Amino acid sequence: MTRQQRDTLDDLLRSIPRTPDPEPEAARLAFARGITRPAPDGVATRRTVLGGRPALELEPAGAADRGRLLYLHGGGYVIGSPDTHAGLVGELVRRAGIRATSLDYRLAPEHPFPAALDDGLAAYRALLDGGTDPAELVVAGDSAGGGLAISLLVAARAAGLPQPAAVAVLSPWTDLTLGGDSIRTLEAADPIFVAEDLADYAGHYLGDGDRAQPLASPLFADLTGLPPLLVQVGAHELLLDDAVRLAGRAGAGDVEVTLEVWPGVPHVFQHHYGRLDDADAALDRIAGFLTARLTAPQLAAR
Amino acid sequence: MTRQQRDTLDDLLRSIPRTPDPEPEAARLAFARGITRPAPDGVATRRTVLGGRPALELEPAGAADRGRLLYLHGGGYVIGSPDTHAGLVGELVRRAGIRATSLDYRLAPEHPFPAALDDGLAAYRALLDGGTDPAELVVAGDSAGGGLAISLLVAARAAGLPQPAAVAVLSPWTDLTLGGDSIRTLEAADPIFVAEDLADYAGHYLGDGDRAQPLASPLFADLTGLPPLLVQVGAHELLLDDAVRLAGRAGAGDVEVTLEVWPGVPHVFQHHYGRLDDADAALDRIAGFLTARLTAPQLAAR
Repeated sequence: MTRQQRDTLDDLLRSIPRTPDPEPEAARLAFARGITRPAPDGVATRRTVLGGRPALELEPAGAADRGRLLYLHGGGYVIGSPDTHAGLVGELVRRAGIRATSLDYRLAPEHPFPAALDDGLAAYRALLDGGTDPAELVVAGDSAGGGLAISLLVAARAAGLPQPAAVAVLSPWTDLTLGGDSIRTLEAADPIFVAEDLADYAGHYLGDGDRAQPLASPLFADLTGLPPLLVQVGAHELLLDDAVRLAGRAGAGDVEVTLEVWPGVPHVFQHHYGRLDDADAALDRIAGFLTARLTAPQLAAR
Repeated sequence: MTRQQRDTLDDLLRSIPRTPDPEPEAARLAFARGITRPAPDGVATRRTVLGGRPALELEPAGAADRGRLLYLHGGGYVIGSPDTHAGLVGELVRRAGIRATSLDYRLAPEHPFPAALDDGLAAYRALLDGGTDPAELVVAGDSAGGGLAISLLVAARAAGLPQPAAVAVLSPWTDLTLGGDSIRTLEAADPIFVAEDLADYAGHYLGDGDRAQPLASPLFADLTGLPPLLVQVGAHELLLDDAVRLAGRAGAGDVEVTLEVWPGVPHVFQHHYGRLDDADAALDRIAGFLTARLTAPQLAAR
């Protein structure tokens, strides 16, 4: 059953033209048409503003008073929005029973690095300034948003802000130099990306800037002091080694890390909940990981 | 509490002379004196023979009819035995509720590579020949025994034998070329090993043989087809990158992988159950991982 689901998804993805439109607006529209799923029944959404940027609040029915997720969507820093990810984030908070704020950070090339990071940090700071206890706050993101989540925590540490209770990243893009072996070795296995796509996104985000700078490529940041980290990645993606190396780098920084490699599935496979059992199981794991860190005071006391 | 436990353990380990005795028999005795803990109450032990080698059976009270663990102890292929690991393995099977056979494979330098692997494979084959359903069999090992567990599965695949239901490795030594960055970067953090210790063990095991051969350094093996893999490693050990890179390599081979990096703890910290909460929690996780693969028929059907 699951293998058949994986194969069906792989065929579907391979039927889609792989290279994004070179015009950012056109690429955004195509991405939105291809990937957007609405928040599930029982998850209320509401437009808001956080740290000066638009954002989407998602509140599952019966949400706990405690706990909030700050979510950073993926899309290569160029495409995507809280709307394209309303289904994914909604499914996550439905499982976790906590509210989320999904941030509409500024996108490249119109707003190159560090605009996205500045927006993320402003949103994080706004949550803290608004009275959110960092022990009741978790951060997550996928793809570029996963890299951005890690960069945000590094920037928060540098700014003297407290760390959240946990962070979860889905297929994070952590190395904009494209230095992972899997960029080459898994090209045939990845049904979505070729290396050139990633290079294009990096060009939009960084222009002539250094692709190895730690706040753009958090793989090269000092990750000491980050909270417990969950990394999920598909085995069929160019970015496998971005995830694996992040786990190693964070571990070397004495961070509690869980890395999950899911066989046979592509980049941010969690988008395919409801039609791919692995996606639902992975979302369950993320929800369990995050809520365990919110509700286990003995961990916070370590 | 846990931080204090970690610091106490670190201090204790640093008080022990780090370099093993160059005489293997003396090193074995010192290791046995330092590390041996008996099987816990409620776990019966019995001497047996498996595949022509001595072994220790461990059976927890109320063990399920289904399920058996084949365990491969650590000790650099030079030291250690089922007796030194009776506590560790006993604690694991007590949690998992399954029986284990802990193999007394031949040790180097008296019996260099591939003696340990031959013994492991013979034991695995003997379990299958004895009627153990591979879907009811799991394999685990720590340190060199963790590397040996992976090599055993690669050798089993090559021999046309079925794979077990799951494999769990604790601080596995997977690269006898000592190629991991953490061999250098974490030298100050590791309270047990310096690189020279590992080089000595590799020399005993391989003599002048190629340290990169895949059945001695399974990091360099094709890991396609291996069963779900759990890797646990401490953040305070030279072998961190042996674990991280194993996870990446297995993932690239489309294996289901979970990697856990436990901050602040040393090589095979699970030995310290009962006095280090992390050790107990890690053993709980291994037991949960293994038994979920034994008792979830929908996974076996994938």
